[in-house]
Amino acid sequence: MPELRRDPIVGRWVIISTDRAHRPTDFRQVLPPAQAQPLCPLCPGNEAQTPPEILAYRANGGSPNSLGWSLRVVPNKFPALQIEGELDREGVGLYDRMNGVGAHEVIVESPDHKASLAGLPEKHLEDVFWAYRDRILDLRKDNRLRYILIFKNHGAAAGATLEHSHSQLIALPIVPTNVLNEIAGCREHFKDKERCIYCDIIRQEIEDRDRVVGENAEFVAIAPYAPRFPFEVWVLPKKHGSFFEESQKFQFEALARIFSDTLRRLDRMLGSPPYNFILHTSPLHERTSEFYHWHIEIMPKLTHVAGFEWGTGFYINPIPPEEAAAFLRDAEV
Amino acid sequence: MPELRRDPIVGRWVIISTDRAHRPTDFRQVLPPAQAQPLCPLCPGNEAQTPPEILAYRANGGSPNSLGWSLRVVPNKFPALQIEGELDREGVGLYDRMNGVGAHEVIVESPDHKASLAGLPEKHLEDVFWAYRDRILDLRKDNRLRYILIFKNHGAAAGATLEHSHSQLIALPIVPTNVLNEIAGCREHFKDKERCIYCDIIRQEIEDRDRVVGENAEFVAIAPYAPRFPFEVWVLPKKHGSFFEESQKFQFEALARIFSDTLRRLDRMLGSPPYNFILHTSPLHERTSEFYHWHIEIMPKLTHVAGFEWGTGFYINPIPPEEAAAFLRDAEV
Repeated sequence: MPELRRDPIVGRWVIISTDRAHRPTDFRQVLPPAQAQPLCPLCPGNEAQTPPEILAYRANGGSPNSLGWSLRVVPNKFPALQIEGELDREGVGLYDRMNGVGAHEVIVESPDHKASLAGLPEKHLEDVFWAYRDRILDLRKDNRLRYILIFKNHGAAAGATLEHSHSQLIALPIVPTNVLNEIAGCREHFKDKERCIYCDIIRQEIEDRDRVVGENAEFVAIAPYAPRFPFEVWVLPKKHGSFFEESQKFQFEALARIFSDTLRRLDRMLGSPPYNFILHTSPLHERTSEFYHWHIEIMPKLTHVAGFEWGTGFYINPIPPEEAAAFLRDAEV
Repeated sequence: MPELRRDPIVGRWVIISTDRAHRPTDFRQVLPPAQAQPLCPLCPGNEAQTPPEILAYRANGGSPNSLGWSLRVVPNKFPALQIEGELDREGVGLYDRMNGVGAHEVIVESPDHKASLAGLPEKHLEDVFWAYRDRILDLRKDNRLRYILIFKNHGAAAGATLEHSHSQLIALPIVPTNVLNEIAGCREHFKDKERCIYCDIIRQEIEDRDRVVGENAEFVAIAPYAPRFPFEVWVLPKKHGSFFEESQKFQFEALARIFSDTLRRLDRMLGSPPYNFILHTSPLHERTSEFYHWHIEIMPKLTHVAGFEWGTGFYINPIPPEEAAAFLRDAEV
């Protein structure tokens, strides 16, 4: 019998449709090996092909936009938003618009064209999170900006247009609807119980263990109760905190460990699947400290997309999260 | 300069990112011709390959599950939900679940394997809408059901797994979040102004004309102000009504005319693009008559999907709707 499950935060219902008789192993990917591209704009030696860098980590020093970096942040060459100009809001009859002030940046995670995030040393992955933090701390000084969206598209099926591994940052003058809905759900729970709903979820999941994929002293990785996608995994800090960028050094170290472990489990069991991940963190200038809990949601892109899901926010998932978690726990990593 | 636009109903902001320099003609599809499949379960002669039919139109009569039909509705062979059983709701700690009672049906729009909805005679397309209505009227008698979702995936890129043209119906014991959000937006506007927001939009769009794609006495087709996708088109009845299934015969006739015209414009100008459409109609047993306005949203699936859009509800669209509407108005159909 299929089952309907409700996400306790945003109220989204998901059909867990096991009768479609998919086994976890049915989702294993067979991908062609990455092709080195001599003309890749994100590769070392091609620094001039991107706009001038905003940030780079160079262990041995060196001048900007030269060789020797281990991580590099550059403006998107085809930005969805522009950093220059005053924010201009306007009503047009019934409608509202504003000009597209914001930022759109690319975080080049490694100089190695063929490296994947799952294959990076933990220390290097930690640097990726430090780069996210550094960019958020810099951009949050800009009062025009209200939300910073950090995400990664890995693999063509997940929307990546460049093969060289990179994440993206979009800084927005508005807070996206889904973030508002998530925050509203958290606020509601806090009003009722004076507790953070994510803290409650973490407590219940660690006790149950059925949906736990991995755990260390600071973080837990779980298959959420009402996942939209097969093998969806959320990585949550055990200690309550609303702002990713306010995390401590020991937390970034622990995050790199559990994140690397989770990605390697997905890689091993599903054959390096395409995925997206999204950093869920508090809007920049809102008071969310008591009730909002930052985390990262990883969504493998494995099913043939029923396009209507975009329009309805309604999901059908053939793999129960308990089964997905057990499958990922079995990985030898 | 890119522009941010807000959907006045659900509050969703969209980036209209013209700086990415796409021309409407860049989106033209080149598709391989459809292959006839002798084993297609939706083709005439293969009636026994589907579960027994629920409804069929046979102009010259004939027995169920035999040849001679022009349109046929059958249960999905791999249903996401099942019609048998009592609705059983349960709390699991923090979480809520219920068993997957509902219906999942396939509307086979034509016996012709190679026919597309855009190519059907208007009279036949009208029958498709009558079939939607007939199924809704039948299923709404079932008190366990609260929402009926009717949609179409056209083309593999839009999630169609069978080539033979068909729509789908999913009857649910819950109302999906996005429907709730849409209704909340409409209710809010009504509380403020005592007017339907869609009626206000229709009035403004018909006056402006910039975003009008087509129009007849009963319907208007517009590119919405804040479209998620390039060439997204909404078809709205001019006369206020909340329930699709309560439309009159002359309305179904006019709907078939404008819908056929719209699909042919998309086909002509974009090379038979993959698309999804979703019927937006009122939940079955809610009092929405004053403020909710049924309509159909058509979403061509033309851009390489940035997968994070699923997770964020945040969209970047390279084509302003004014440009899309002008482009589609130019089609010779």
